[in-house]
Amino acid sequence: MKLLRYGDAGAERPALLDMDGRMRDLSSVIKDVDGTALSPESLKRIAALDPAGLPLVEGSPRIGSAIARPGKFLCVGLNYADHARETGKEPPSEPVLFSKAVTALCGPNDDVEIPRGSDRTDWEVELGVVIGTRAKYVDEASAMDHVAGYALVNDVSERRFQSERGGQWVKGKSHDTFGPVGPWLVTKDEIVDVQNLDLWLDVDGQRRQTGNTRTMIFGVAHLVSYISQFMTLEPSDIIATGTPPGVGLGMKPPTFLSAGQVVTLGATGLGEQRQLMVQA
Amino acid sequence: MKLLRYGDAGAERPALLDMDGRMRDLSSVIKDVDGTALSPESLKRIAALDPAGLPLVEGSPRIGSAIARPGKFLCVGLNYADHARETGKEPPSEPVLFSKAVTALCGPNDDVEIPRGSDRTDWEVELGVVIGTRAKYVDEASAMDHVAGYALVNDVSERRFQSERGGQWVKGKSHDTFGPVGPWLVTKDEIVDVQNLDLWLDVDGQRRQTGNTRTMIFGVAHLVSYISQFMTLEPSDIIATGTPPGVGLGMKPPTFLSAGQVVTLGATGLGEQRQLMVQA
Repeated sequence: MKLLRYGDAGAERPALLDMDGRMRDLSSVIKDVDGTALSPESLKRIAALDPAGLPLVEGSPRIGSAIARPGKFLCVGLNYADHARETGKEPPSEPVLFSKAVTALCGPNDDVEIPRGSDRTDWEVELGVVIGTRAKYVDEASAMDHVAGYALVNDVSERRFQSERGGQWVKGKSHDTFGPVGPWLVTKDEIVDVQNLDLWLDVDGQRRQTGNTRTMIFGVAHLVSYISQFMTLEPSDIIATGTPPGVGLGMKPPTFLSAGQVVTLGATGLGEQRQLMVQA
Repeated sequence: MKLLRYGDAGAERPALLDMDGRMRDLSSVIKDVDGTALSPESLKRIAALDPAGLPLVEGSPRIGSAIARPGKFLCVGLNYADHARETGKEPPSEPVLFSKAVTALCGPNDDVEIPRGSDRTDWEVELGVVIGTRAKYVDEASAMDHVAGYALVNDVSERRFQSERGGQWVKGKSHDTFGPVGPWLVTKDEIVDVQNLDLWLDVDGQRRQTGNTRTMIFGVAHLVSYISQFMTLEPSDIIATGTPPGVGLGMKPPTFLSAGQVVTLGATGLGEQRQLMVQA
């Protein structure tokens, strides 16, 4: 099942994608694609609906973040061995965890702002994991029971803010629009093997990133269990699971985004995003 | 004006403290002490009320976090020169920013959990700044216009998780109950000089921290302006502004908390907190 949110920013309505790829409004069933809607019981109820009985969404409205604002927008760093190498770092011995401000969340095709004073705005295509039930001290064997589904994420980053402005990455990860999520929340049952999804990203039509989740250092189940040792994960929390090789920082010479450029990205089964870069 | 929240965790009701220090229920006026309630217009409306006309809260209910869950719970590191020294670090040249998971938020007198596997759970008394209006790219001169008020914060930390588990501090700052906030949100007008507030913290009745906000390296106005260059601050966001000397990590030998110990802390005009340490 694919859930999404459409409409103006801040006024999105929930919908599902029917068999023909058309949007069907879910406002009569759920309030939003939020923690409540993502519980196993709620997802079961939505899955039992006949999409043909739901109102067809007319026209081509804006698509919002696939998930309403969560409590936490977490990210895993250096989680692909070849990406770790391109940044000049050793693969980590345990997951590197950092956070994005939840205000960074935006729609998959919204313009992305280049912050004032930025000369190193970079791209990162990632698999996003969305939590469905509360997880605290869960083991790896039961970790996947707490996952509702997946969404495509561009973990947009300002490398100088991230690494040269006081040591904690949150400064370089949190600018408004640095977190496009979607177009869809794809429920877990639709993804046969989450550790075998292709990821790609282009800048102005030129391929920059190519990868597959099979080369993750720490897989999804391990990450959910691991993070739950440090904090409680709640329904609708998003975990961006790291990026494969090909970021601007790793190019020779390093190459970053400027206003007017267009970034497109996608992942097997999770759809595509397209962002125009604009100056903040 | 002092606003607070009382009742069981997750079911708190808003209240204000009257001239005699009694709680008056505000449920008929505001839904919660949240971003909406903290707007200048809303605070003005509450200030114009006659507290005697509001229902008196009977008994001694639990006090919740002074602020309903915000979008962001940010913290500033090493912001007192003498604390920076005790950790063995140079005072930073610009504010060190990190984040706490919002799930760490709790009431001022709730039990604080020592995480499983922790042997370095530490205390940090701090001045918390609470945002009242949206702030993006604001200058220092207008930064205070975006502040609704202040609250006492204990930025509870697990030092090993913070520094020895992959580099980003969020791991050591985010355990459930690592963010007691309150007892009150004290509106800005009540604090004559926010850069001259005494802070103190005791463990089992022994004084551990003593400080004053006048020795902050970066003052409140600078911090709000600075952070707004990296992310948009929203109403009810909390910024814990750093801790004065006397944390466990800085003691010789370093000394940390164990289950059964009691931490008490306070700040001029912001009230006091009391937490019993319990094992998670």
